[in-house]
Parts: sequence; structure tokens; C-alpha cells
Amino acid sequence: MNEFYQKDIFSIKDLPKEQLEKIFTFTDKIMQLDPSDRREICKGKTLGYLFFEPSTRTRLSFDAAMASIGGNSLGISDISSSSTQKGESLADTVKIMSIYSDVLVLRHTLDGSSRFAAEVSEKPVINAGSGTEEHPTQAIQDLFTIKKEKKKIDGLKIGIIGDLKYGRTVYSLLHGLGNYDVDVRLISPESLRIRSDSTYEIKKKLNFTESTSLDEHIDELDVLYVTRIQKERFPDEEEYLKVKGSYVVGLDLLKQMKDDCIILHPLPRIDEISPEIDNTKNAKYFEQAEYGKHTRAALLGLILNENGF
Amino acid sequence: MNEFYQKDIFSIKDLPKEQLEKIFTFTDKIMQLDPSDRREICKGKTLGYLFFEPSTRTRLSFDAAMASIGGNSLGISDISSSSTQKGESLADTVKIMSIYSDVLVLRHTLDGSSRFAAEVSEKPVINAGSGTEEHPTQAIQDLFTIKKEKKKIDGLKIGIIGDLKYGRTVYSLLHGLGNYDVDVRLISPESLRIRSDSTYEIKKKLNFTESTSLDEHIDELDVLYVTRIQKERFPDEEEYLKVKGSYVVGLDLLKQMKDDCIILHPLPRIDEISPEIDNTKNAKYFEQAEYGKHTRAALLGLILNENGF
Amino acid sequence: MNEFYQKDIFSIKDLPKEQLEKIFTFTDKIMQLDPSDRREICKGKTLGYLFFEPSTRTRLSFDAAMASIGGNSLGISDISSSSTQKGESLADTVKIMSIYSDVLVLRHTLDGSSRFAAEVSEKPVINAGSGTEEHPTQAIQDLFTIKKEKKKIDGLKIGIIGDLKYGRTVYSLLHGLGNYDVDVRLISPESLRIRSDSTYEIKKKLNFTESTSLDEHIDELDVLYVTRIQKERFPDEEEYLKVKGSYVVGLDLLKQMKDDCIILHPLPRIDEISPEIDNTKNAKYFEQAEYGKHTRAALLGLILNENGF
Repeated sequence: MNEFYQKDIFSIKDLPKEQLEKIFTFTDKIMQLDPSDRREICKGKTLGYLFFEPSTRTRLSFDAAMASIGGNSLGISDISSSSTQKGESLADTVKIMSIYSDVLVLRHTLDGSSRFAAEVSEKPVINAGSGTEEHPTQAIQDLFTIKKEKKKIDGLKIGIIGDLKYGRTVYSLLHGLGNYDVDVRLISPESLRIRSDSTYEIKKKLNFTESTSLDEHIDELDVLYVTRIQKERFPDEEEYLKVKGSYVVGLDLLKQMKDDCIILHPLPRIDEISPEIDNTKNAKYFEQAEYGKHTRAALLGLILNENGF
Repeated sequence: MNEFYQKDIFSIKDLPKEQLEKIFTFTDKIMQLDPSDRREICKGKTLGYLFFEPSTRTRLSFDAAMASIGGNSLGISDISSSSTQKGESLADTVKIMSIYSDVLVLRHTLDGSSRFAAEVSEKPVINAGSGTEEHPTQAIQDLFTIKKEKKKIDGLKIGIIGDLKYGRTVYSLLHGLGNYDVDVRLISPESLRIRSDSTYEIKKKLNFTESTSLDEHIDELDVLYVTRIQKERFPDEEEYLKVKGSYVVGLDLLKQMKDDCIILHPLPRIDEISPEIDNTKNAKYFEQAEYGKHTRAALLGLILNENGF
Repeated sequence: MNEFYQKDIFSIKDLPKEQLEKIFTFTDKIMQLDPSDRREICKGKTLGYLFFEPSTRTRLSFDAAMASIGGNSLGISDISSSSTQKGESLADTVKIMSIYSDVLVLRHTLDGSSRFAAEVSEKPVINAGSGTEEHPTQAIQDLFTIKKEKKKIDGLKIGIIGDLKYGRTVYSLLHGLGNYDVDVRLISPESLRIRSDSTYEIKKKLNFTESTSLDEHIDELDVLYVTRIQKERFPDEEEYLKVKGSYVVGLDLLKQMKDDCIILHPLPRIDEISPEIDNTKNAKYFEQAEYGKHTRAALLGLILNENGF
């Protein structure tokens, strides 16, 4: 009996290290399987998605993951064209989609939406991003990428740069990293520092420092995790342009990095990473996207098969 | 040889009682089948949908039904983004989609659209809602739900409440009920009474009374079928609020009902049924949604397999 | 080893006659296969589509083609709702979709977009229409239709009528016809003549004349290829109405044609061909749509199977 069977996935905080490692093991297994054997894992199963906040990238990642293990996907990618527009409650929409599918994938602007959904859903619910902090499948993908590319997570120095205030990806990653013995450097403009109310909990399990300067840390990092900085977040454009320039990862910066430092990004990127980096051995963000498909497939396979696969 | 094979489904009026019962029998069969056997029924077959009027719920019900029997779906869920926008005729759009699929599912604002479509289609056409009165697969779903939950249809007292003027669901259900020996109570605000030109035909085969008061009938009903009342239908808001309040199904009303009265709703609901009803044994609208998937799967299986399944 | 294996399809100009004929041979094979054998060709393979310019028709043709050979499709049919809106580059969008799929289908307004996409894509890229001239799969479909319906292409007289200036379909067809020994009559209003800069290359390999009069050529044609004339292309409405009337293919015109002249149209049509033509033996535009599905399936099957199928 596998502990993920029919389990909801709300938050990375709910997943102890052993469970993360189990997902990684099954991800490795999926990557080694022959495609036709892989398609047996969720053959004929249906994933139902409900995206109350559009996210083409995350939706397609789940869709591709489900297809790779033999299942299919259906749902609503843009809730504005659905019954919810007619005033239907989230509860009813969730309930119905859960009748039509074997597992539900929910994206929503509100914190707690997936927990609420699970109360009415007939089927397990996976949170595909909610509120300001939760994006558990992204964190699993990120942790797996670090482990796969660095052969370990413990002992690493990890820099996270960009908008640390508004990106839910970063909060989930930090909670995930809290399971490991790592040193984290948070690097952001003053106005986009991580929210102090959120770090309270993170501080208990994770060593991290905060800074506005990438230069200060660049030569000590094993992993540089870059996030997007959105212009709209800045009150005046001048500050944006200043910040933007100093945080762009280009070949100059690369020279200052450790030779085996890997560069990650949850994507989509705008210009935080210069395209000239793409073909260097340090760039691992496209591998990260591919691992995202496989980690999601592993998770779906575990949730939908009583005895694993 | 099965009489549904390659047959169009335009209207519930075309389906005699024996054919309805046959669909019910095959629905039971589908529900008892092992999922992997179920997926053999329409393995590799393609459903093509054309929704000229958006209806996420109905489209997903067909999509989920087709997936459950091993087929796949493709089509246009929002015709505004398609070639029709370039001025293409309904006939051409239908013709092409029928070339791409094994069965066509059409939703359209106009009466007669599915009959017209069938004239040019290479493949059988299923009406997924058209004009003011036709929604045959919803009526099949509703009749099956009553039969499944009450073990019979004949002899029942059935109340139908809400907007009886504009909802095509109600007209189709009444025609379907005309095949059985039932007593129907139509309950609606004066301004949303059933259209008299439409009842002319229904009167010939169905006993029904009309009333504005639910209280009057509540204690005698075996089935209470609730429909949505849309604010936009009322000339002034005051009348809307008055009506709305008096027709909401809540725990108070439930106490007046027969202990085994079942409550149905085609969904989506707004607030016609209070959420506190959802967990009572009387609430059967979510089961109704599930049966909708299975009745559609049965119908598709019969249409696409010469000798049934 | 099959020369299409993992190959990109950018332009009809890249496909020599032997390769076109090979696709035709495999299209015939697909049409003869039993559906269940056909579904083995790309079983479990995933087509990823990226439509930067909406084209429901072309997208559904690829989707139906992929389904018929056992694969599935996912992607973005309307790029305006995707990450590209957040400023993501074409390169990144392509790169990610190529990670999620086995073959990429790209529609884009810009010339050269598919070549550019192939440089970053992990998987082969098929151009589903780009810029002003390239639509290779449409040309393959058109050539196959002529060959199938006329039993040959060499020796035919082919009239192409309508908007020859803006329709990319016509340019691709002309390049495709350049592989055969045919006589082409280009017929268009003066203002919608084929662009002279584009004909420079075509002239080297294809005999064609230009004219504004259909009457002049109607009785000598073996194939009449009709294209849509869009009102928006004309500076004043009067000229549009004059042209529109004189180019409509109706029963009167049909009487002047050779008895076995076939009428083609890439669809969607508006009123360039009168519906009364649809049921004549000369109308082959719906067959053309069906062949489009099968030629695309053949191409996908060749690209995704090292040793053909």
C-alpha cells in the first residue's frame, strides 16, 4: 500500500522528506521506463483540471504528464467561459468535475482553495498553484531538478534571486528546501524582499540570509534560482530599470560563478536570463521543465495506483 | 442489429418508451462494467463537438462519457473563435467536423439546427441542446435518474419548479415523462409559466397541473425537480426577489416533504437549493450529473456499435 | 530508414517530387488500413501545437489526423491566453512545447517562423502555415486530391481563381505544381493578381498565364481551384461587388466546364461556390478536406517512425 494513494496534495509543507524522496524515486523510474510500459501506469484514467487563474504552462505540463502515462485530460482552462460565470459556486464546479474524472487539478487565486475543494470533491485534489504561497508540484519539480543535476541537495549553497515578495513559487521552494541541510541566499530589490510574516515559519527549519546584491554571493553558489521581475510591481519605472539591469544573468555574471553552478528558472522568463546562457552547461531550466512533466507523472501515478507502479 | 446504430438523436419526442428503456438498460450495463472493458466500447472512436452556444457542463459531460468508453473528443467549444466567424455556413462547418469524427454533438440556439445538420453530416448527429425546447440527452439523464433512485417512474408525483418558460430542459423532460403514467405539478411564478403553445402537444399524453405555490404540493411529491430562475427574466427586481425567496429549497421545506422525496436539478444551480441540502439523502442532483455521463456513454456506445455492446 | 524520420517540414519547396509521391503512397496505405491497425502507427505519441494565428480548421485537421493514428494532441490554440502574453519569447514557447511532445505543429504570421522554431525545438517541426507563402501541408493535401481524383497530375490544365495576392495557400500550391508537367491559368481581379516578386521563382519551373476572365478558360480546365475573396481586400465596395459576382461558381458556370473537371477549395468558403454545386460529381472540396486528414496522418506517421509504417 502506497501512502499517496487517493491522497490530496495541498502544500509542499505537508510532504515530509521521505515522501519527497519517494516521488523522486518514482520519477527516476518513469524516466527509465519504455514509453509503452509508461503508458500502462494510468491507462484510461482521466485528469480533470479547473483553472480559475490561467496558466498555460502548468496546465500543459499536467496534460503532457498524464498523456505520457496513458491517461487523458479534460476540464476548464479558462473559467471565464464556464458555468461559474452563471454564478455557480466553486464547490459545485469542483463536485461536478470530480464526478467526470479520477483526479482533480486545481489552480485558484485564493489561499486554501484546494483544501476547500477536497472537502467536496469525490476524487483526490492536486493544488496546481493557489494564493500567494502554494505551488507544491513546482517545488517538487525544482527539488528534483537540483537533486538530479547536483546528485544531492544537502550541503548546497542556493541563491534565489528576483521577485521574492509576490512569487508563490519561491515560498513553496523554501518550504521544500527546509527538509534539507542547505544554505540559502535570498537576493532581491528592497521592495521585493520576501514577506516577513511568511518567513517566520521558514526560519525555523532553513538557514537563509537576505541581501540586495547578487555580486556579493555569486561566486559561492551551487544553484542560482532566478525568478521573473514584473515591471508592474514597481511604483516608479526608474527603480525597475535599475533593478532589472543589475539582476540579469548573462555571460559576464557566468564567469564569476562556480564552474558547476546550475541556473534554474520556473519559466516563463522575460529577460532575467540572457539567451546566450541557454547553451551553456550551467543552464538547466529547460531540463527543469522536462523534469516537471516527469515529477507530475510520478505523482499522478502514485495517487492513482494503490500499490504504486 | 441495434436500432440506434448510426441514428441521429434530435428530440426526446422521437424516442418511444422501449427505446428509452433500452438506453437505461445499457446505462446499467456500462455502470457495472470494469473500466478496462468499458473502454473497449468506443475504443479509438472520435466524437466531434460543435458548440454554437457555450455550455461547458454539457460539453464536459460528453467528453467524459466518450473518454470512459475509450474514445476521444475534438471540436469547437466556442464557435466565436472559428471559421464561422469568417462567414462559413453552418452546413459547411458541420460537414467538415463530420469528416473529422465518428459522431457529431451539436449545440445551437436555433430550433431544428440538429435536423438541418444531419442532412449534411456524414455521421450521426446528437442534439446537445437547441432552440427553446430540445435537450434530449438531458431528458434521458433525468428520466434515468428518477428510475434509478425511485426504482420506477410510473405512479410517481413529480413537481417541477422554477423558470418553466425559458428552460429547454423542462420541455424535454415533460415530453419524456409523457411516456410514463405520472402526475406532474408545474410550479412557477405567473410570469414564468410554461408556454401554452408548447403544452398543447404535451397535454395529450401527460397529466399536469399548474400552480404558483410550492407549499400547496410539497407534501405529496415523490420527485422535486428544481430549475434555475434567472434575474434577467424579470421586468422589475422586486418581483424577482419575492419569487426567489419563496422557491428556495432549504431544510425548512425539506421537513414538509415526503421522507423519500428526491430532489433533482439540471445544474448549474445558483441559490435555488441551499447547500445544507447537499448532504441529505434526498439530494440526488450530483448523482444525476454522474448518471448523465453514463447515459451519454450508453447512447454513444449504441450509436457507434452495430450490435450494441 | 525513411527520409522523413525526425525531419522538419518548413516549405513545399523543400519536397522533391519523389518525396511528395512517397507521402501520397503512404496516404493511400493509411486509407486502406483497418482503423485498429491505423491506430498503431503513432500509438501513445503526442502532437504539440502552437497557433500564434488562430486556424480552427487546420488545427482540427491535425488533431483528427493524430487521433486516427492513435496519438493525442495538446497545445495552445489561441496564443493570446498563454505565457507569450507575459512577454515570453517564441523560442522559449517552442522549446517548452517541444519538451512536452513528440512533434511540433506551428502556425505563425511571420515568414521563417518554423525554421527559427526548429533551431530551438527538441522535436521535428511542421509548418502549419506561416507568413505570406508557406502552407506545405495544405499543398500536399491539394496535390494528393488532384492525383486521387484525376488519377494523375501531369498533363492537366489547372485554373486557380480568386485572391491570388494574399492567400498563402496559392503560393504553396504553385510551388508544389512546379514538380509536375501542368498548365496553370491564374485568374483574379487586377488588384488581387499574384505578387510578381513571388512568381519570379515559380516561373522557372511552372507554365502559367494570368488573366482576369474565368469565362475565357472555363471550358479547357481539368481542375478549378477556387479561393476566397475577402471584402476587406478591396479599397471600394463597388469593385468588390463586381468581382464577387463574376467569380461565383454556380450551375451556369458548371455547364461550361468539361464534364470531368473537378472543383476544389481550401475552405472555409463564403459564397465563392454556390451550395447547389455541392452535390454534383464535380465538387471535390469535401473529399479534399478528408484527404487533408489522411495526408497529415501519413506525414506524421513518416516523421515519427524510423522505418515508416
